[in-house]
Amino acid sequence: MIDYQQFIKDCEAVRQQSPLVHNITNYVAMNTAANVLLSAGASPLMSFCPEEMDEIVAISSALVINIGCLDLHEIEGMRKAAAAAQRLGKPWVLDPVGAGASSIRTNTAMELIKNYKPSVIRGNASEIMCLAGLTIQSRGVDTSESSTNAVEAAKSLAKATGAVVSVSGAIDYITDGERVESIANGSPLMGRITTMGCCASALTGAFIAASDSVFSGALSCMAMMGIAGDIAATKAEGTGTFQPHFFDALYNFNPTEAAKTIRQ
Amino acid sequence: MIDYQQFIKDCEAVRQQSPLVHNITNYVAMNTAANVLLSAGASPLMSFCPEEMDEIVAISSALVINIGCLDLHEIEGMRKAAAAAQRLGKPWVLDPVGAGASSIRTNTAMELIKNYKPSVIRGNASEIMCLAGLTIQSRGVDTSESSTNAVEAAKSLAKATGAVVSVSGAIDYITDGERVESIANGSPLMGRITTMGCCASALTGAFIAASDSVFSGALSCMAMMGIAGDIAATKAEGTGTFQPHFFDALYNFNPTEAAKTIRQ
Amino acid sequence: MIDYQQFIKDCEAVRQQSPLVHNITNYVAMNTAANVLLSAGASPLMSFCPEEMDEIVAISSALVINIGCLDLHEIEGMRKAAAAAQRLGKPWVLDPVGAGASSIRTNTAMELIKNYKPSVIRGNASEIMCLAGLTIQSRGVDTSESSTNAVEAAKSLAKATGAVVSVSGAIDYITDGERVESIANGSPLMGRITTMGCCASALTGAFIAASDSVFSGALSCMAMMGIAGDIAATKAEGTGTFQPHFFDALYNFNPTEAAKTIRQ
Repeated sequence: MIDYQQFIKDCEAVRQQSPLVHNITNYVAMNTAANVLLSAGASPLMSFCPEEMDEIVAISSALVINIGCLDLHEIEGMRKAAAAAQRLGKPWVLDPVGAGASSIRTNTAMELIKNYKPSVIRGNASEIMCLAGLTIQSRGVDTSESSTNAVEAAKSLAKATGAVVSVSGAIDYITDGERVESIANGSPLMGRITTMGCCASALTGAFIAASDSVFSGALSCMAMMGIAGDIAATKAEGTGTFQPHFFDALYNFNPTEAAKTIRQ
Repeated sequence: MIDYQQFIKDCEAVRQQSPLVHNITNYVAMNTAANVLLSAGASPLMSFCPEEMDEIVAISSALVINIGCLDLHEIEGMRKAAAAAQRLGKPWVLDPVGAGASSIRTNTAMELIKNYKPSVIRGNASEIMCLAGLTIQSRGVDTSESSTNAVEAAKSLAKATGAVVSVSGAIDYITDGERVESIANGSPLMGRITTMGCCASALTGAFIAASDSVFSGALSCMAMMGIAGDIAATKAEGTGTFQPHFFDALYNFNPTEAAKTIRQ
Repeated sequence: MIDYQQFIKDCEAVRQQSPLVHNITNYVAMNTAANVLLSAGASPLMSFCPEEMDEIVAISSALVINIGCLDLHEIEGMRKAAAAAQRLGKPWVLDPVGAGASSIRTNTAMELIKNYKPSVIRGNASEIMCLAGLTIQSRGVDTSESSTNAVEAAKSLAKATGAVVSVSGAIDYITDGERVESIANGSPLMGRITTMGCCASALTGAFIAASDSVFSGALSCMAMMGIAGDIAATKAEGTGTFQPHFFDALYNFNPTEAAKTIRQ
């Protein structure tokens, strides 16, 4: 069971500390991820320039690496940023977008995990199952698997890597290899809107920067995303109107009221 | 005249098959094109990394190449993807954004057409007239010409290349060199919102993947775009509110009701 | 005091001339900046491909360079575009995003100013103070300083460079080193939405292309941005719904009515 007081504390910590979150993310998600961070009270920075990675990581509170639109030049920036985060003891999140869809995606995710030890690995069921060594049938960047089928893979990946693993889906699962927590909030509309997963990864960066616990931060983040999705879904008429209402819900988020609506 | 039953069938096929559409598109359009595909029922993937082109094309049902923000590195990815599509017999769409505005745009579009034979060429009047060999006065990526003036150029380009040519404008024209069909749906607001043409190209990819006919798929796509535009325009107060209503209209699209509102 | 007739004239000139504005901007801002330009009546073009810079600058009425997501390849495009603008006598705007956050950002901004003499430098307080040679504590791409504290730095930067300097914040300041004008319109929500500053820079490009005065164009632009923000804020429920209303406010902008609401 989620600790409601911790959830409230984590949400308030993001707004009070307004952590600077450095994102190396794909071009589809750059604008939406920045707006999710700003709406939730954090401060975003987007950069993949290898030449400034050391300086940018040094002034940031957390790093988020999302391999959604990778190429060799960006991978170089990812390596430099992840190395700097590890060296400086900054928490960082890996979103292995499309792992399983191509060798370069799978290999890049594997390499970053092995060499630079992310604090959190946040992906969909297919991606997490792929990284846990299971053979999957790829649907590109969308998942072909239910998140519930990925729970054992997530536990195994967490144990093998030391990372908290956060799997999104109709039900979200967060595990450190021992504990498994779930969040059942959120709307099916979120699966028909691009970059919702990337936004969850970006916001996870803000939460692990602000929370006193990586596991709790990763969990509180998915609860906030899901509850904001619930609120937006009641006001939306489709995938288009959902989006402005979703940002509004993050901006107007009341953690105490929200805690009462958590579904696990 | 459009075949209403075929239009309904094509729209339903996109939703039922949910084709994976691989897009090499510009950075302005990445988010909106992905959301148009998701709202209409398809599944988007955005990648231009040369190293994964073979694998990504192999798992996709269609490819869309949009030269809106090209550079030499991206052109390399475009060539690899188009070659893979041709080799694997996957249908693909070329959007020659800004052809005529610079030599590299015109030459890249010409080279991709000549070497890799797109299934559909989808652009605005200026772009189509440029590719048909006419001298145009470029307004950058916006057209300086009415689509009606481009019909003969479109027919000639279709005959010369074997592609279906789809010209967007106040009236959209779709031709295979012999047949010419038109769609008069849509709102003038669409010309004041960025990437509407790029989104039409992305959605054309989904339709030619799902339809049993490239010509019919290209035509049905422009009808869906125009009708969704009509619906959004009745709810919008300007260019900003138009956009969420447009995605909603795609998401809530009822092909049978929509067929009754087609204007040619 | 702002000249109301000049403000009205500038806004109408943008709509009547619909200047083609060439943007080398970051991936976060590409879509929003293009939509701001289209909604206000201008025509956007986004390109950073070094090979087409000469041709694109030649057909454009103004250039905007924004260093938000720079890398060495993009810097090459920026240099070529700025050199072409200078050679062809086209007005151009520099937005030194994140100057002070890393050496490559500060150095690139400094080099572009020194070698290619922008018509307008438009940034937030931290960026302008950094370029004026003051030591700042960087918060990444967000400002850690009030714009009011940057007025003297802005005047000094304007005198040193010959550029009009436009500093955004709760109050915007525009100076040519002698004159200082302020705009107090706008909503605090604009500080919690990504790329509002980048959009102001893009629109400044349209205004200095259309106005008969660089100083007046830069000033009228910030008044239009602020007033559109005022209008959107009355309709918005948060950061999400603000955005569509903001684009609508630009699209439906009535310069004569707007002039009555300017706050200085």
